[in-house]
Amino acid sequence: MGLHEYRLETGREGFYAITGKISEAIAESGVLEGLCVIFSPHTTAGIAINENADPDVRYDLLLGLRNAFPEQPGFRHGEGNSTAHLRAGAVGGSQTVIVRDGKPLLGVWQDIYFCEFDGPRQRRFFVKVM
Amino acid sequence: MGLHEYRLETGREGFYAITGKISEAIAESGVLEGLCVIFSPHTTAGIAINENADPDVRYDLLLGLRNAFPEQPGFRHGEGNSTAHLRAGAVGGSQTVIVRDGKPLLGVWQDIYFCEFDGPRQRRFFVKVM
Amino acid sequence: MGLHEYRLETGREGFYAITGKISEAIAESGVLEGLCVIFSPHTTAGIAINENADPDVRYDLLLGLRNAFPEQPGFRHGEGNSTAHLRAGAVGGSQTVIVRDGKPLLGVWQDIYFCEFDGPRQRRFFVKVM
Repeated sequence: MGLHEYRLETGREGFYAITGKISEAIAESGVLEGLCVIFSPHTTAGIAINENADPDVRYDLLLGLRNAFPEQPGFRHGEGNSTAHLRAGAVGGSQTVIVRDGKPLLGVWQDIYFCEFDGPRQRRFFVKVM
Repeated sequence: MGLHEYRLETGREGFYAITGKISEAIAESGVLEGLCVIFSPHTTAGIAINENADPDVRYDLLLGLRNAFPEQPGFRHGEGNSTAHLRAGAVGGSQTVIVRDGKPLLGVWQDIYFCEFDGPRQRRFFVKVM
Repeated sequence: MGLHEYRLETGREGFYAITGKISEAIAESGVLEGLCVIFSPHTTAGIAINENADPDVRYDLLLGLRNAFPEQPGFRHGEGNSTAHLRAGAVGGSQTVIVRDGKPLLGVWQDIYFCEFDGPRQRRFFVKVM
């Protein structure tokens, strides 16, 4: 029913391009015009769409997110990864893209990324096309 | 047509688990494979997906969001709740989840939350399944 | 197939109300009950839903986002617009709204905005209704 699951291994933190997998899932679904939802079932990793050209942008995104959501003396969560929960929430746990002519409708500078904030881990994400 | 409306009463601020309502809406819709959109019609309250195990995570999320979007001397909005608008925008006013086997496809640590940043209030949210 | 493209010219930064265009796209699609996705194909401009009543809220949102994601000495991206990438990512590159009775289901205080963080530019956005 147009549902795909993918797995990946992540490092400590990072943006991992997954646009190729999304294109593959859409092609396999046979849907030509519709919607595609990419969903992370994790609470310290999310899905983002951002620039694909200069890898320094991903470096700056990680730096800017750490700066916006730093460790707080008042944090209570014993696992010590609350900033990862905050950063995953800020980028969002899913993205929705439009499907046109059997492909994801993205801008020329856009790629879809799996965003790890609390690795290294075995992670997965789901792609639903309809 | 698979559209449900729910109401809740909130405190000053907080994350309120609504996964049970979402599961109920999906079951009532009869949709087995599809998408479900949870939408907040408010501008100082949003919808988030985050950890369900340790309530301290919700405490830390609220603290981290207040820290990232604090009161600013330069704010102009007379109502004085601009940080609530910012925090609601950061978590997002809606979430989209995949429906599989008539249930929301969530990670084991994920719950869906209604996020109040400017209560106490009478609030509502919509759930669309298709 | 329910897909519309719109263009707009932006200033340096700002929130541009596009709810009228969304309503128009939904009406033209003929869809009465469903979903509508508004998507920005840009990486330094996003789509937000926030308060429509007091323009000071938009002023405060821009101020609060600049404060949360300021310039960092450690930024590497040569173009110098990493904070725009961060702010666009924080508001999100798309929004999903529910369609009811052939109209976007929004709260009375909500409008949909195209959010420019790195203008002035010629921009566009897509609206998919299904």
